[in-house]
Amino acid sequence: MSKLSYKEAMQVNPHLDKSKPYPLAGLLVVDFTHVLSGPTCTRMLADAGARVIHIERKTGDDTRHIGPYLEDGSSEYFRICNIGKESIALDLKDPKDHDLVENMIAKADIVVENFRPGVMTRLGFDPDEMVKKYPRLIFASISGFGQYGPWAKQSAYDTIVQAFSGIMDATGDANGKATRVGTSVADVVAGIMGYSAITTALVARERTGKGTTVDVSMLDSTFALMVQDLMTVLGIHQIPHRIGNRHPYMYPFDTFECKDQALAICCGNDELWKILSHTLGHDEWTNQSEFKTNDLREKNWQKVKSVMQDVLMTKTASEWDKILNDAGIPAGLILNVNDTSKLDQIVMRGMVKQLPDGNEVIGTPMKFGTWNSYGVQKDAPQLDEDGEKIRKEFE
Amino acid sequence: MSKLSYKEAMQVNPHLDKSKPYPLAGLLVVDFTHVLSGPTCTRMLADAGARVIHIERKTGDDTRHIGPYLEDGSSEYFRICNIGKESIALDLKDPKDHDLVENMIAKADIVVENFRPGVMTRLGFDPDEMVKKYPRLIFASISGFGQYGPWAKQSAYDTIVQAFSGIMDATGDANGKATRVGTSVADVVAGIMGYSAITTALVARERTGKGTTVDVSMLDSTFALMVQDLMTVLGIHQIPHRIGNRHPYMYPFDTFECKDQALAICCGNDELWKILSHTLGHDEWTNQSEFKTNDLREKNWQKVKSVMQDVLMTKTASEWDKILNDAGIPAGLILNVNDTSKLDQIVMRGMVKQLPDGNEVIGTPMKFGTWNSYGVQKDAPQLDEDGEKIRKEFE
Repeated sequence: MSKLSYKEAMQVNPHLDKSKPYPLAGLLVVDFTHVLSGPTCTRMLADAGARVIHIERKTGDDTRHIGPYLEDGSSEYFRICNIGKESIALDLKDPKDHDLVENMIAKADIVVENFRPGVMTRLGFDPDEMVKKYPRLIFASISGFGQYGPWAKQSAYDTIVQAFSGIMDATGDANGKATRVGTSVADVVAGIMGYSAITTALVARERTGKGTTVDVSMLDSTFALMVQDLMTVLGIHQIPHRIGNRHPYMYPFDTFECKDQALAICCGNDELWKILSHTLGHDEWTNQSEFKTNDLREKNWQKVKSVMQDVLMTKTASEWDKILNDAGIPAGLILNVNDTSKLDQIVMRGMVKQLPDGNEVIGTPMKFGTWNSYGVQKDAPQLDEDGEKIRKEFE
Repeated sequence: MSKLSYKEAMQVNPHLDKSKPYPLAGLLVVDFTHVLSGPTCTRMLADAGARVIHIERKTGDDTRHIGPYLEDGSSEYFRICNIGKESIALDLKDPKDHDLVENMIAKADIVVENFRPGVMTRLGFDPDEMVKKYPRLIFASISGFGQYGPWAKQSAYDTIVQAFSGIMDATGDANGKATRVGTSVADVVAGIMGYSAITTALVARERTGKGTTVDVSMLDSTFALMVQDLMTVLGIHQIPHRIGNRHPYMYPFDTFECKDQALAICCGNDELWKILSHTLGHDEWTNQSEFKTNDLREKNWQKVKSVMQDVLMTKTASEWDKILNDAGIPAGLILNVNDTSKLDQIVMRGMVKQLPDGNEVIGTPMKFGTWNSYGVQKDAPQLDEDGEKIRKEFE
């Protein structure tokens, strides 16, 4: 666990210099997003230094009314997704507010929205039309299933997309039930993929002057995570089955019970297997006919697991963790994210940081030598906090 | 399941026009990556039209020797990660090969590597030095724990990072075991985050002329997925616990057993709860004191689940899927990824596509109006397939 406070971590760490210029400084983002996938994308834009104006309806983003709530009654859900942004509350059906938004889009580099396909068109801001009218604009839409195709209009939430994508069926014990990934992975990955597509479009715009629409879906993005199972499906035309915690094509690459709790051990090649056999006091495993290659260990994984397990049960997970890592075998304890958030490695890299108001938030995983890698320095806005200023600016 | 062949899907679909220009056309990537996180990043660069030269050691990328294997004995693992790239086999300790690589880097826009921190320096290509020498260069390093910090030199594999990040502890039943996500999510997400950081750096370079090093870690990237649990940790300072398939802050947002199999149902607000109550024949649930707001349903989720379950067990998952979706309630079957890969929506969006040699591969989730959204059009290379051509070009 970290012995460093967040402030100390900053002081000893030139990598997180807050005064460095941001890579996307000067870019203007008009942000129509709500809940999770869209706000994740625009938070990444804010972390990279773009100015993000979050347009909320008069009652605020849905997540302002979803817990967990802080002591002042505000939503932590909203906060963690919207740090570093400005907020203006508008009624997009009011002609005056509509004109204001049109003026904002006219000056924007990027629009991001995650309504159901068709909603922006009904509101008078059709993506294709907007890019025709403002040819340098990047208009990004994030949705459950995409802007076209037979399912385009269907609504989606993270758990539905996890169910459709195959990731839920692939997670869990072979004899157990399909298991949801313990975070909203479909939302968050679609947000990251949306960010990837927007920055790709920005590169192309800088080089050609042309804007574009962007269409990223939660289903496409989550499906694309399924690399190993898709090797099975597309390569050897077999149906993959969930297999618990082990790797489909390498062994031993699994979690193992020790005296007190489980330990992850990853032995990716024959050289590591030799070291592991030695470290567990069984040099004879190295060349044993059932164990000597990865393909054989994979085929006979139950036997490998069983003989390893007998040895591992003699000490605690922490004891084995040290012994194995000292020997060069990748191994690791299974941590609760509360413990992860306090690891020196996480704190040193600014993955948890404290904002000036004292609130703690997630940092940015994009670390640059030349550019600011600290990310946003300001908390999430109150509803319409920047409304007056923005109205004056774009009227 | 799809009634369209991949070819037909292309013909009816102007969104996937193969002749459109690529957003990153003309950029040169020198790719020192191996196995999964790095190759995922450089495959995205290839999908966006950059030229990717994959430098392999004389024995080839590790994954050439990991299954599953195709009939010709080649590795599907290598293939799915390296479509669209060129291959040259080199011995980086050989002075002649070293000079060739230096010439390539001198002309490159981007270098990507995922060795352990320090290896590129030992090979004579220190990231900071390279960016000093070639000031427009973007030199991206993807690693388990990052280029700095107390754990920087530690080796990592996907399962270890899943264990450390908190995602494994968060996945699975409340009374069950910590569960590995059924795909190498830490590797793949680090690859996507690496791509995000590279394109961000490209935007900054186009606008300022400055290159940069990029440092993305699997631990940072996977930790950043844990949005909901981090609300609990950072916001309300509690320790989150794994909770099976339900959402931590919304209910009903879970999987439910029907007569034959489970169905995912996501009811994110009170309006949908009203419709759901009506559709399940229990209008009285809408205003029932224990159920009437999301916060109440979340608190009393076991009771909500129990009364819903009684009704849902009377029909099959497919029957309820249709009834609920027709009523506007987001619901979905839990599919095996083999079935996902054959969905019309997946095929129409080119998320599975057939290359000219007949092999099927994953498409790109980044869809653009202006730019090519089909992705790479060429299969993975044989070892050193492009070696002679590349040697001539960069000698």
